Amino acid sequence: MKKLSIGFVLLFLLLFLHLNLSAQKSENYIQHVNPLIGTQKMGHTYPGATVPFGSVQLSPDTDQQPHNIAGKYNKDAYKYCAGYQYDDRTIVGFSHTHFSGTGHSDLGDFLIMPTVGDLQLEPGAKDNPKSGFRSAFSHQNETAEPNYYKVLLEDDKILAEMTTTTRVGFHQYTFPQSDNSHIILDLMHGIYNYDDKNVWTFVRVENDRTIVGYRQTNGWARTRTVYFAMEFSKPFTSYGFKNYENQAYRGFWRKFDQTKNFPEAAGKQIRAYFDFATAKDEKIQVKFALSPVSTEGAMNNLKTETPDWDFEKVKRAGQNEWNKELGKIAVTADTKGDLINFYTALYHTFLSPTVYMDADGKYKGLDQNVHQANGFTNYTTFSLWDTYRALHPFFNIVQPRRNREMIRSMTAHYDQSVHKMLPVWSHYANENWCMIGYHSVSVIADAIVKGNLTGVEAQKALDASVQTARTKYYDGLEYYMKMGYVPEDKNSSSVSKTLEYAYDDWTIAQMAKKLKRTDVYDEFIKRSENWKNVYDASIGFMRPKMSDGKFRVKFDALQTHDQGFIEGNAWNYSLYVPHNPDEMIRMMGGKQKFAAHLDELFTMHLPDEFFADTEDITREGIIGNYVHGNEPSHHVAYLYNWADAPHKTQEKVRMILKNQYRPTPDGLGGNDDCGQMSAWFLFSTLGFYPVAPGSDQYSLGSPAIKTAVLKLENGKTMTIEATNQSDKNVYVERVSLNGKPLNRHYITHAEIMNGGKLTFMMSDKPKV
Amino acid sequence: MKKLSIGFVLLFLLLFLHLNLSAQKSENYIQHVNPLIGTQKMGHTYPGATVPFGSVQLSPDTDQQPHNIAGKYNKDAYKYCAGYQYDDRTIVGFSHTHFSGTGHSDLGDFLIMPTVGDLQLEPGAKDNPKSGFRSAFSHQNETAEPNYYKVLLEDDKILAEMTTTTRVGFHQYTFPQSDNSHIILDLMHGIYNYDDKNVWTFVRVENDRTIVGYRQTNGWARTRTVYFAMEFSKPFTSYGFKNYENQAYRGFWRKFDQTKNFPEAAGKQIRAYFDFATAKDEKIQVKFALSPVSTEGAMNNLKTETPDWDFEKVKRAGQNEWNKELGKIAVTADTKGDLINFYTALYHTFLSPTVYMDADGKYKGLDQNVHQANGFTNYTTFSLWDTYRALHPFFNIVQPRRNREMIRSMTAHYDQSVHKMLPVWSHYANENWCMIGYHSVSVIADAIVKGNLTGVEAQKALDASVQTARTKYYDGLEYYMKMGYVPEDKNSSSVSKTLEYAYDDWTIAQMAKKLKRTDVYDEFIKRSENWKNVYDASIGFMRPKMSDGKFRVKFDALQTHDQGFIEGNAWNYSLYVPHNPDEMIRMMGGKQKFAAHLDELFTMHLPDEFFADTEDITREGIIGNYVHGNEPSHHVAYLYNWADAPHKTQEKVRMILKNQYRPTPDGLGGNDDCGQMSAWFLFSTLGFYPVAPGSDQYSLGSPAIKTAVLKLENGKTMTIEATNQSDKNVYVERVSLNGKPLNRHYITHAEIMNGGKLTFMMSDKPKV
Repeated sequence: MKKLSIGFVLLFLLLFLHLNLSAQKSENYIQHVNPLIGTQKMGHTYPGATVPFGSVQLSPDTDQQPHNIAGKYNKDAYKYCAGYQYDDRTIVGFSHTHFSGTGHSDLGDFLIMPTVGDLQLEPGAKDNPKSGFRSAFSHQNETAEPNYYKVLLEDDKILAEMTTTTRVGFHQYTFPQSDNSHIILDLMHGIYNYDDKNVWTFVRVENDRTIVGYRQTNGWARTRTVYFAMEFSKPFTSYGFKNYENQAYRGFWRKFDQTKNFPEAAGKQIRAYFDFATAKDEKIQVKFALSPVSTEGAMNNLKTETPDWDFEKVKRAGQNEWNKELGKIAVTADTKGDLINFYTALYHTFLSPTVYMDADGKYKGLDQNVHQANGFTNYTTFSLWDTYRALHPFFNIVQPRRNREMIRSMTAHYDQSVHKMLPVWSHYANENWCMIGYHSVSVIADAIVKGNLTGVEAQKALDASVQTARTKYYDGLEYYMKMGYVPEDKNSSSVSKTLEYAYDDWTIAQMAKKLKRTDVYDEFIKRSENWKNVYDASIGFMRPKMSDGKFRVKFDALQTHDQGFIEGNAWNYSLYVPHNPDEMIRMMGGKQKFAAHLDELFTMHLPDEFFADTEDITREGIIGNYVHGNEPSHHVAYLYNWADAPHKTQEKVRMILKNQYRPTPDGLGGNDDCGQMSAWFLFSTLGFYPVAPGSDQYSLGSPAIKTAVLKLENGKTMTIEATNQSDKNVYVERVSLNGKPLNRHYITHAEIMNGGKLTFMMSDKPKV
Repeated sequence: MKKLSIGFVLLFLLLFLHLNLSAQKSENYIQHVNPLIGTQKMGHTYPGATVPFGSVQLSPDTDQQPHNIAGKYNKDAYKYCAGYQYDDRTIVGFSHTHFSGTGHSDLGDFLIMPTVGDLQLEPGAKDNPKSGFRSAFSHQNETAEPNYYKVLLEDDKILAEMTTTTRVGFHQYTFPQSDNSHIILDLMHGIYNYDDKNVWTFVRVENDRTIVGYRQTNGWARTRTVYFAMEFSKPFTSYGFKNYENQAYRGFWRKFDQTKNFPEAAGKQIRAYFDFATAKDEKIQVKFALSPVSTEGAMNNLKTETPDWDFEKVKRAGQNEWNKELGKIAVTADTKGDLINFYTALYHTFLSPTVYMDADGKYKGLDQNVHQANGFTNYTTFSLWDTYRALHPFFNIVQPRRNREMIRSMTAHYDQSVHKMLPVWSHYANENWCMIGYHSVSVIADAIVKGNLTGVEAQKALDASVQTARTKYYDGLEYYMKMGYVPEDKNSSSVSKTLEYAYDDWTIAQMAKKLKRTDVYDEFIKRSENWKNVYDASIGFMRPKMSDGKFRVKFDALQTHDQGFIEGNAWNYSLYVPHNPDEMIRMMGGKQKFAAHLDELFTMHLPDEFFADTEDITREGIIGNYVHGNEPSHHVAYLYNWADAPHKTQEKVRMILKNQYRPTPDGLGGNDDCGQMSAWFLFSTLGFYPVAPGSDQYSLGSPAIKTAVLKLENGKTMTIEATNQSDKNVYVERVSLNGKPLNRHYITHAEIMNGGKLTFMMSDKPKV
């Protein structure tokens, strides 16, 4: 009888496993994702575990902060924006927050590291991992999947595995036999340009398995606090803190030995350790929940999202979630590499913005007060100078609900802003003001024009956009409003600012038009023409103009530094009139001349002296003088469409796709920038691109897959088919939509969202 | 018709004013309060405005922090525990939080200072106030009343007035004519032993009248944040910030001029200023609300408590509140000085603990989470080593409801404590562990034994007391529990700790007895005898014992430093067995010998070399070798009652009352210690004293007033009458209660609370 029961159980188990495997098999998109892509050189992606748009990014860090000198500039920090560099041979530990692809550093909160043997509380040297708690590792013993990361820590032969839920990092460490095993919690560790960014940390050991606390930092985000709750799968036998700060008189705290088994610590520079005895191959698990609000919130997140001690279940749930999200586009392609490129790009676009609220809907606002998100999920990490271009437009197609909620998060930011401004570059209840323009308005306009934001909400978002665009003290804006351009002698990067304000203003005009707000339309459509004020027809480039109305004499179109531009030279940036290419081309001498100009851009050689100050990219991130690794040129290849040379758009796009995106750790030529580079890849691979977000048109390029099926949130399906597709057949012979010829170089948003079939007939010959 | 209306209105107004004045006149207790008492030398009281138990203590500071050297020890800090020293001739400004009478420094948040002329953002030198924003003042032009403080700032001829509600400081500055008037908000200023206690400050200028922000400090309270909301009665014309910190790279914040009219600032060292044009005698008012929770909470407190711009109304409301509280005891006395002493002492006992929660009941807990106070008012600032002796017992008579709520605040602290300990010395959601013992248990026992805490709540409070008293790692407690005493070689101040633990344990036994918890009673009544273990019969003093069971050889009964005691020498501290004087007297050689020993204490001379290390008191704070300015001897004068010499209790008490409490700024010989010194005065002046809180008995002394009517919360009235009272008639001939002779040296709590009349017949001859 007993045996029979066991038999049945086994049978059911096998059946369950089989069903599960086949279910996974039928839609296994995660197999095509390689989170290591972009972790070498300039990609600044992280290889660790996270769920789509998750608050926790649990990932290995291969460099450490701080370097023990308060406030010291860390020249390597840029390399370690995501904490991990593929070329490194040691891991310091696993921290819980990471940006994906940024060109500036922050985060890296709460580093966890397991060790065995004599306790070492210093990280030790990179070239001598045994000198501290860091460990050697090798890529042979490393696995990175969506929501799963595994590595063998070679120094102590500890297998480290991690997975996550939205708000909880779930660690699993397989120890060797030892009476002297430890798990270190490093509250000093962080990622930032300067050491000593900690403002305060606070820890409580609630019982022999539970720790709570917070970390407050002054980094890229000026006033930022992250709260945590941590739980071990088994009780520690003892624990301790080390406070590295040279502390003044601590009064009656002297009555305690605060270093050992004392349950409370606070200060700027603290590391904690927890001791265990472990049997051979014993697994110790750690749940580590984050909250933007409080330790109470973190504890509630932990209990809500990870009620059990089932690592596999958490991993599986997160991977299923990834499969669901990645499955929104089902592609077929020629090579495994193409699939990996595609799904890894899709993966990278679904990493940020990240959810920024507790399971109960509470979050910290820009005003540092706690707010309740009513009716939406609050997001943070808005790298808008990058992501307004393609990422948010991409979301309007494949993540429209989330994009709406991101805009709600942006207008909540506006409501909480003392400046009454929409976000510029915001993260963790902070505005860091990074880069230029006010591109929130583009994201809002794109959603409104495409019908993804309507009614009162759209009206309010327009009001916020207008108010933002009238903030006089913002970055030369008063001059721009008065004079029609930003004068270079009053404000640096003046040309870039003028061009981007003009585009942003056009997007405000577009939403005003859609919302029938004529006064706003009139004001901003006028402002949108300001780009003309910085065009110097005598040289055919945009050029810095002084407050006396004259162009600055000093000028070098190849130089990036101090030429009135930022992250781009005049060759690249002068083409930044996405909202009116026709007029720009006319002013630049007409279509033919313009096409030749573009040809030159793509083929000329940028001497090394000029490359040196091109930021954020590798040499491979440049094609001729076209800089794909930075964003201002992302629309440029599509401009041939306006110059009667669509075949050149087609060949350039395919060239960029091939050169700039490779399925290898060093496959990204520049920072992925919170998914913008990947979104460019995805649009272009699908065969179209939003040259001017805020318009409902996508400019057609050359699709790089065989078929792609977009499963839309509205229940419809849009199939893209590239007939006769191959590496050589990069030219589009003809295009049809639902069987009817499409005799234009664009497709509209409504056409995509209505579903159906878009067919590209490919050829190896340009259709001139 | 119109004229008639105005006439009527005027008539009503006059009638109203008349009624109001006469109402005030009939019970004008505040006229007897002089908040300047104790502001000179060691009293450490503050002269500024506050309401009873108010969260805001808005008071002038005459010294400044920081002294511009990070972490530097400030040797003068002790003098400035309350921010103000009467001998000083300049005022730096007015800050919003002050302890009353502490022997340790903290607080001093948010200094406001009005100035005229060229902006000076540095405080300047004490001896040259014109060198900075500080100003000369003189006591001739200074008025201090309950909830009202006024001073002429002589440098710029600005009249400064202030009043408060519980959570709002209300400033009124009368300016001269000037186009260049300023109000400075100094976020660097603070009160503490070390400079640079700021961890972070954050400010937002919400509009041209409203500012919010917070200040986070690492001072006596290790992790403390106070939030504020500030509103001006008229818009400022411009404003600015100065950040004194040497800041690292601030990224894209560079795009702003953050010094002038930029609405946001954050950092460690910030001062702000607000500019006005003022007409001659123009008043600018400032409302400044505090919150323990958030700027949102502060703003709500501001709106709730001060909806209008009516300074006089706020002042009047607060003074009415004071009259109501002070009116709980109506006394008659021979001299105006006696009345001032009495009502100023009563005033000082009603200053702390202070309300620590928002108007909506939210407060920050010890766990740094936000809690909702359900069914009670949450209090903070528990100076328990001082206040368990007389202040909380005094509250059990005159403020029983508040005392219950204070205990609820203490048990909430316990619930939030990671140590599961009741408060030792706590303020602002922090435990600072100051001094020794765990005297919360005495406060709780006193309330339970006296019937002021009952039911489930009492049982829970007992559990918390027991748990607290079993915290092994607390201050030698494990040794005490194992060995029956704290060994001096293991833990300093071992005798004081042993004696106080023993007393505290006795109080736990008393509440256990009352609550019928026999097991707890048995455990703790046994522990309460541990005082015997440190009594050295061979010398007649308590004496430090080593872990080998032998008394330490090195011993000096006059020395305070390093003799096994704290804030007291062996002469004083050896008498600390408040819960069993009979047995102590027996062990010390019997009643006669003991009385002679006490006589010697009061009459011997303490050489200067020993006085030097007696903390916290002036030379006048000592009578012979009896140290009244520190607390451990507060029960000592009453011990004659146990030695068959009650007349000596009577004469000593009257002597102490006369010598140690004078109606002058230097009238307090030692720190008022959050009201403990004043509570001693009040009890003793009324003729009885709680020698052992946790007992329901008060030991009789010699009343120093003619009559006192206690208006009890239960609606009853207790009248104390001293017949034949005079300065010379300090001896009590006989006592009667409700007309019946009281032939014992104590009165019970129930007898007081039942109301009636306690009559002392006074005489100039001791009844021996």
